[in-house]
Amino acid sequence: MKKAFDTEIISVGTEILLGHITNTDARDISERLSQIGINVKYHSVVGDNPERLRRCVEIARGRADIIITTGGLGPTCDDLTKQILAECFGKKLVKNDTEEQGLYEYIKTGRALTPNTYRQAMLPEGCTVFHNRWGTAPGCAFEADGKHVLMFPGPPKECIPMFEACGLPYLRRLSDEIIVSHAVHIFGMGESAVDDLFADEMNGMTNPTMAPYAKECDCLLQITAKAKSEAEAEALIAPVIAHVKERLGDVVYGVDYDCLEEAVMALLQEKRLTFAAAESCTGGDIARRFTELPGASAFFKGGVVSYVNEVKEGVLGVDHDLLEEKTAVCREVAAAMAEGVRARLHTDLAVSVTGLAGPDGDGVHEVGTVFIGLAVEGQTFVRETHMGAFRTRSFIRRMAGNHAFDMMRRWLCGLRVE
Amino acid sequence: MKKAFDTEIISVGTEILLGHITNTDARDISERLSQIGINVKYHSVVGDNPERLRRCVEIARGRADIIITTGGLGPTCDDLTKQILAECFGKKLVKNDTEEQGLYEYIKTGRALTPNTYRQAMLPEGCTVFHNRWGTAPGCAFEADGKHVLMFPGPPKECIPMFEACGLPYLRRLSDEIIVSHAVHIFGMGESAVDDLFADEMNGMTNPTMAPYAKECDCLLQITAKAKSEAEAEALIAPVIAHVKERLGDVVYGVDYDCLEEAVMALLQEKRLTFAAAESCTGGDIARRFTELPGASAFFKGGVVSYVNEVKEGVLGVDHDLLEEKTAVCREVAAAMAEGVRARLHTDLAVSVTGLAGPDGDGVHEVGTVFIGLAVEGQTFVRETHMGAFRTRSFIRRMAGNHAFDMMRRWLCGLRVE
Repeated sequence: MKKAFDTEIISVGTEILLGHITNTDARDISERLSQIGINVKYHSVVGDNPERLRRCVEIARGRADIIITTGGLGPTCDDLTKQILAECFGKKLVKNDTEEQGLYEYIKTGRALTPNTYRQAMLPEGCTVFHNRWGTAPGCAFEADGKHVLMFPGPPKECIPMFEACGLPYLRRLSDEIIVSHAVHIFGMGESAVDDLFADEMNGMTNPTMAPYAKECDCLLQITAKAKSEAEAEALIAPVIAHVKERLGDVVYGVDYDCLEEAVMALLQEKRLTFAAAESCTGGDIARRFTELPGASAFFKGGVVSYVNEVKEGVLGVDHDLLEEKTAVCREVAAAMAEGVRARLHTDLAVSVTGLAGPDGDGVHEVGTVFIGLAVEGQTFVRETHMGAFRTRSFIRRMAGNHAFDMMRRWLCGLRVE
Repeated sequence: MKKAFDTEIISVGTEILLGHITNTDARDISERLSQIGINVKYHSVVGDNPERLRRCVEIARGRADIIITTGGLGPTCDDLTKQILAECFGKKLVKNDTEEQGLYEYIKTGRALTPNTYRQAMLPEGCTVFHNRWGTAPGCAFEADGKHVLMFPGPPKECIPMFEACGLPYLRRLSDEIIVSHAVHIFGMGESAVDDLFADEMNGMTNPTMAPYAKECDCLLQITAKAKSEAEAEALIAPVIAHVKERLGDVVYGVDYDCLEEAVMALLQEKRLTFAAAESCTGGDIARRFTELPGASAFFKGGVVSYVNEVKEGVLGVDHDLLEEKTAVCREVAAAMAEGVRARLHTDLAVSVTGLAGPDGDGVHEVGTVFIGLAVEGQTFVRETHMGAFRTRSFIRRMAGNHAFDMMRRWLCGLRVE
């Protein structure tokens, strides 16, 4: 087929309409679809209600070529997606023996299994089954009346791996135009400054295109090309990436990284170095973020969360009088924490964070005042930030972590750190 | 008016369809609407495209009484929401002098302002203006053809405060029915087991209603009542909560808690106790989760992330020979880590986690094998879990944290811990 596929994602779940959960499935599927040249034109969310779901499906089949559903495949009575979609497209549900057997195997792992569980093995006749290696409910795909229907379970931990393992290969076969997209990641320059810098160029571009996007605590410049082949698309993008990297300079921390810590890991690997973290207001978030990356243990030995002064003093060796005199929120304590954790954990680098994430202040410093330290052999750096009291606790914590990773990155690249 | 208002939220923005941003506006508005008795029946997302937006609005007016839009109110050319909505409901856009003056004042605060900025002061004739104290683009509301239309800017930092300050008061005046909803939170019993337990009862219920929902690593039973007043709705719900708590027993960790750590914090507060954490495979996530809660420092002194054995030994005092002989993934190391961090940080309780979060194994244990320890004065407990190698790294880490919090909760309540 030689056409663009308009796609609608229908997410089924009353929880989403009640605001109990966020529809991250639609976001994550959309992101992956845009990378293979499939245009998402609509997202819809509807509750666990057969009549309303049926009407949503009727609307979707009138305006989309591909309908992707998430949710409503589970064992409970309000899980209706398969029944309704099969019905709308005139298909019967039939029992899939392999899937039933799989569910039976699943019991043996010790999980409670109820009679309803087996309902999950009922699938539209003639469909392609997407076996669920991440949970119980299988997904599936079928083609009917010129439309492609794909169904995935709702829990993101099942939906997204299944979409990647089964949905993407299924959909790739439908299209002959390839979209390739790369993101140049930036920390230390805001989205509007990036937009200003490239506004004139962007206006004139058609293929590739370029657009800046703000993320929570950094931003990126997305460069996207369409072509008949991946190689052709890559060849269109390469000179643009080189050009923007040159113009932006050292605020670029990488291409196609999900986060600063990935850039740091690559540099630590290259230089065979280790680090540790001493965290106060980030409360373990730097350690948590870095150890989300598989293989982190080769570079991150560990850390100390010194949430109260007693631990800064007792475990990290920060001077008692210094804490008394200047409180924990100061340049000297950040330096002492980084040096202390580096000495105790015997690492090459060490970062530290101390500050006020709010919502309550300490009566002395404004919320958002955070000191970030970096200790290396023979030298300690401290960056002082004032993020503003209007910022949320989670923003301040994440941004402080970004500064710590940015300081490591800059030191590892031989750039100015503070 | 004495009716239920079916509501549709239309979010306008190509960035959502590309997966670059998450539609948190729809979630946050939905949550607030359900609290004042307004039913959200649909969410829709459409790009910055006049034709498709127009068709979405036509669908929404056919199935909803209230249409709420987010996004597309800004100054750029692809901000079309006001134009399209006004057009669909036969209204003209007219310049609002107060808002134009407000935009003029805004320039003086030093923010860049383009000629287009003034387009934001064009509003549907006769509308109620929602002045934007959090940005530039004003929102608005109007009634036409028996439908209520409310428009809010897209950025969550503007959308949600404006919705609360202007949208909620506007909508409250329309309804005289109140919905009250409470969630009974459960750890240690899955969603399907909960569903089975109450399936018969749930089928017969109309007001209140009851429905189980799975969360990532636990689940909840949502109980919802409609009534003329909040007190009346609460009175309908109270006996149902008492009944389900009695039937479920000690797997219930609380009502209307967002997470297990909130329940733990309430218990620590009640008993005036402190804790610390020694984390290996969770990598700081227990510390991070607890310190997301404002006020955590009164109960959580800190922790050690002992990601490599050298730190387990050097900082936590785990026996070298034990680590050599049994590796770090065993009952004894979990116990020694909890005891070690408790002694070093001088806390009442201490939890520990050691195990394999994957994706790579250690050649000895299966991925998902995790030992969770709890040390208290004179006693140490260890729970052994096998979550299954098919689980993702982040699931295993989160679930291990839930076990640690669950062990604390159970000990603090005098229940069996292991």
